[in-house]
Amino acid sequence: MSSAVDYRLYLVTDTGQCGDRGVVTTVRAAVAGGVTVVQVRAKDGGDRDRLALVRAVVDACAGTGVPVLVNDAVDVALLGGADGVHLGQSDLPADEVRTLLGPDRLLGLSVSTVAEIGAAPTGVLDYLGVGPVHATPTKTDAAAPLGADGVAALAAATDLPCVAIGGIHLDTIDPLRDTGIAGICVVSDICAAPDPEAAARALRTRWDRS
Amino acid sequence: MSSAVDYRLYLVTDTGQCGDRGVVTTVRAAVAGGVTVVQVRAKDGGDRDRLALVRAVVDACAGTGVPVLVNDAVDVALLGGADGVHLGQSDLPADEVRTLLGPDRLLGLSVSTVAEIGAAPTGVLDYLGVGPVHATPTKTDAAAPLGADGVAALAAATDLPCVAIGGIHLDTIDPLRDTGIAGICVVSDICAAPDPEAAARALRTRWDRS
Repeated sequence: MSSAVDYRLYLVTDTGQCGDRGVVTTVRAAVAGGVTVVQVRAKDGGDRDRLALVRAVVDACAGTGVPVLVNDAVDVALLGGADGVHLGQSDLPADEVRTLLGPDRLLGLSVSTVAEIGAAPTGVLDYLGVGPVHATPTKTDAAAPLGADGVAALAAATDLPCVAIGGIHLDTIDPLRDTGIAGICVVSDICAAPDPEAAARALRTRWDRS
Repeated sequence: MSSAVDYRLYLVTDTGQCGDRGVVTTVRAAVAGGVTVVQVRAKDGGDRDRLALVRAVVDACAGTGVPVLVNDAVDVALLGGADGVHLGQSDLPADEVRTLLGPDRLLGLSVSTVAEIGAAPTGVLDYLGVGPVHATPTKTDAAAPLGADGVAALAAATDLPCVAIGGIHLDTIDPLRDTGIAGICVVSDICAAPDPEAAARALRTRWDRS
C-alpha cells in the first residue's frame, strides 16, 4: 500500500477542535475537499470510545482511497480496521509495532532531528512526520520549531516520504514547497474551520500550485 | 493457564507509590512475600517506557509461576510478553481484546455492578475484578464503595473467579473472607510499604488464615 499513498494533505484530527460537528463529519467534509490521509488522534477518554471513533472514521473514508491511521494505539488500529499507525518518539518502538501490524499496514514516525532519523529502524516505516515547522498551541510538548530550512534538512536525511507538521496554515505553506516533503499535515486549519471542506480545498489548491 | 491461576493476593503496581525503590524491586519483594498475580498499571508516560517496565516485571517474575498482567494496553502486553491484560469498563471490549490476545493469555475485567457482570461477554474472561470495596485515594474515578456485602453479591452473580479491589488493607481483609472471592487486590499496602516483602507476607498470612 505504501507506494501508492498520496501524502499531499494529511489531516490529524483534534476532537475538541471539531466541536459539535464532530470528528466524523469533519473528516467526511475534509476528504471531499481534498485531504489525502487521515490520522485519528484522540488522547482523551478511554480506548472503547477511541475504537468507536476509529471505526466511524474508517467507515466514512471507505471507498475514497484515503487511508486512516491511528495515533499511538496499535490495538485500537488493529481492531478498528485502520490502515496504519502513527508513532511518536515516546510510543512503542516502530520495529516492534511492525511485528503486530504485519507488512501491509502503514507505519509513520514523528521525528524532530536528524539524529532521530538516524535512530529510526530501517525497513519498517512508510513515512516520517517532520516537525514542528512552527510553534503551535496544539502540541505543547513539541521540540523547537524547524522552520522551512530545518524541514528541508530532515527531508534530505531520509529516503522516506516526509510530511511536515506544526503550525502549517494556508499562509505558511509556500515556503515548504521546495523542501522535498511529500505533503503537509494540518490540524486546526481544518478541524476548527467553519467549513472544513472549503478549508481542505484551499489548502490542497495552495499546495498543488507548485 | 486460567484454571491454574492462584488469585489469592493480586498486586496492582503504582509507580509513584513504589518511589525510588522502583516497581521491579517492589514486585520482586512482593512475590517473595507471597503475591500470586501482578498487574502492571502505569497510566503516566509513553508506551515505550510502559513496554520497558512490563518487560522488566516479566523478567522479575520469570520462573516464579506468578502471572504478569498489563492494565489496558493490549499492544504493550503482546510485545512485552505478559501473561494477560486487565480491562476497565472504558477500555477496549473484552471479546475484541480476546481476538488479539489469543486463547491462552489471561483476561480480566473490572466490574462494579451486577449489570456490568451481565453485560460482560461470556467465554472470553478469566476473572473479574470487583470493587471498589472501600473508597480509596488510588482511584478517584471509582464507583460507590460496595462493602463486603456488595462484593458477595457480585461474586454470587458470576461463575468467574473474583478478586476484590479498593481500599483493602491488612485490617479490612477479614470481612471479605466469606464473600466467595478468590483473592484480594492491593496497591498501597504493598507499593508504599517500607518492606514490601513483609507487607505481602502479612497480607497473605491474614488472607490464608481462613
